[in-house]
Amino acid sequence: MIFYLWKNKIYIHPMELKDLRSISIWKKEKLELNISVDCVLLTVRDKKLKVLLNMPFPEVGYFLPGGFIMTDEDADAAAIRILHQRTGLDHIYLKQFRAFSDPGRFSYPTLFRNIGWEKHLMEELHTLSERMISIGYFALVNAELIQPTGGDFQESTTWGDIEHLPELNFDHELIITEAVDALRRELYFRPVLYNLLPEKFTMPELQNLYEIILGKPLDRGSFQRKMLRWDVFERLEERRSGVAHKRPFLYRFNKEKYTTALQKGIHFAI
Amino acid sequence: MIFYLWKNKIYIHPMELKDLRSISIWKKEKLELNISVDCVLLTVRDKKLKVLLNMPFPEVGYFLPGGFIMTDEDADAAAIRILHQRTGLDHIYLKQFRAFSDPGRFSYPTLFRNIGWEKHLMEELHTLSERMISIGYFALVNAELIQPTGGDFQESTTWGDIEHLPELNFDHELIITEAVDALRRELYFRPVLYNLLPEKFTMPELQNLYEIILGKPLDRGSFQRKMLRWDVFERLEERRSGVAHKRPFLYRFNKEKYTTALQKGIHFAI
Repeated sequence: MIFYLWKNKIYIHPMELKDLRSISIWKKEKLELNISVDCVLLTVRDKKLKVLLNMPFPEVGYFLPGGFIMTDEDADAAAIRILHQRTGLDHIYLKQFRAFSDPGRFSYPTLFRNIGWEKHLMEELHTLSERMISIGYFALVNAELIQPTGGDFQESTTWGDIEHLPELNFDHELIITEAVDALRRELYFRPVLYNLLPEKFTMPELQNLYEIILGKPLDRGSFQRKMLRWDVFERLEERRSGVAHKRPFLYRFNKEKYTTALQKGIHFAI
Repeated sequence: MIFYLWKNKIYIHPMELKDLRSISIWKKEKLELNISVDCVLLTVRDKKLKVLLNMPFPEVGYFLPGGFIMTDEDADAAAIRILHQRTGLDHIYLKQFRAFSDPGRFSYPTLFRNIGWEKHLMEELHTLSERMISIGYFALVNAELIQPTGGDFQESTTWGDIEHLPELNFDHELIITEAVDALRRELYFRPVLYNLLPEKFTMPELQNLYEIILGKPLDRGSFQRKMLRWDVFERLEERRSGVAHKRPFLYRFNKEKYTTALQKGIHFAI
C-alpha cells in the first residue's frame, strides 16, 4: 500500500516510520496523503486467471501493489510507475476502472496494528490523513515476460488465483472482483487480450484466453469470425509448429490497424 | 465546484472566503480538500441529449454541479447529496465512471482570478490543497420531474446541449465527453434509459431515446426483440392514447424482474 517513496528511491519502510521525522519527509516528498492507486495486475497461468499480490512482511498479509499519487503526477502516471517498480515493464496495458472511497476502507492503525507500532504514532499518522481514497487500475501482462519483484525490500510476491484468493487487507478483494468485471466488460469493446500472449499467437490460443476470462466456452467459428472482423489481427505466413494435427496460422496484433479502427469508431462487440 | 458546505447548510460563498477565518471552518467541517465529485446530470429535451450546467456568478462561467467529498462519506454518497441539492430528487440513477486527476486540471487561483481575490489569499488556499482530484458520475433524469436549482445562491442553471456546449471551466468538457461515452457503453449491459422516461412508456419512445443517445437509427423490430428479451419491461393492458394510427402498448420497468435478471447474470447486450 504505502511502502514506497519514488523520488531518489527513498523508501518508507514502516519500521523506519517509528521515527516520526520520516513523516515530514513523506510530506516533503509531495505525496497526496489521502489518494492512492491500486493495481490489479492480471495474467493467465496454468489456465487460470491470476493476480499479482504482495506481502511486504508476513505480519501484515497480502496487498495489491499500490502506492500514493504524487502531487505532480496524474493517476495513470502513478499506476505506470508502480507497475514498473513491480514488474520492470514499461508498456503494460492498463485501464482505470473505479475509485474506492468507503471512509472506513483503510486506516493506518489497522495497517500497522500487527507490527508493533506505538499507539501515539498511529494516531499521529491518522491525523495526517483520516481516510484513503484509492483509484483502481486493471492491467494485463503475459506472465512469461516478467519476474515480479516487491521492490528493494525483497517483499514476497505471488500470483493469486482469482477463484481462490488468500485473505487480503482492506477492500482489496472487492477491488479485484470489480477489476475482473471491468475487464470482462472491456472485452466487448476492445480486443485487449493479446496483451496476455506472446507477439505471435494462434486463434485457438486467443480463444482459450477469452474462455478462461469469461468463464464459458465460445463457439470456435463465430469467435474467429468476430475476431477477424475487427481487422486488427494480422495473419502471418507462418504456422504454429509442434502441433500434432492441424498447424494453425500465427497472428500478430497490428497497432496501426487498431489505431485506424478506433478512429473509425468501431465497436468491438464480441 | 466548491461553493457549498453541507452540514448545517453553511455555504462557502467565494466572497466570504476573503475572510480567511472561513478556511478554518472549511477544514473543521471535515471536507476532503483535494477530492471532489463532479456530476454529469443528463436528460433528453427537444430530442437532444443535454447536461445540467451551473453558473454560480457570471464572472466565473459554467461548471458541472459538484462539490467536496466529506471525510465521513463515500463518493457515491457525495454525488447523491449534490444531485439532491441541485434537483430535489432522491432516487436518481447514477454511476461513477472515472476519476480525473491531471495535476493541472484545477487551481484555486484560476477559479477565483475573475472575482477580485487578493493574491495572498489565493496562495493560502492553494497551499491548503495544491491539486484537486475529481470523481466523475453520470446521472440520468427525466427533465420533466425536476426544477433544477443552483442552491441557496440562486445560481443560474441551464441545460447545455451536448453537441453545442458553452465554454466550461477546467476539464469539465472532457468530463462530459467521457460521461457520454460511459453511458453509451452502459447501454450494452444495462437497460438504464427508462430513467429518462415517465413511469409508463411505449417501445417507440424508448427506441427514440436510444437513437438520440447513440446518435444512430436502430431497426425497430430487432430493437423491440432485444428489449423484450431482457425481460425487465412489463407490458401493461393500456395503450398510448392520442396517437393517430396505431395505439402502441404502454410498458413499465419492473424492478423485481430486473433484480432477478441481474442475479442470473444476464448480459444486457443491445
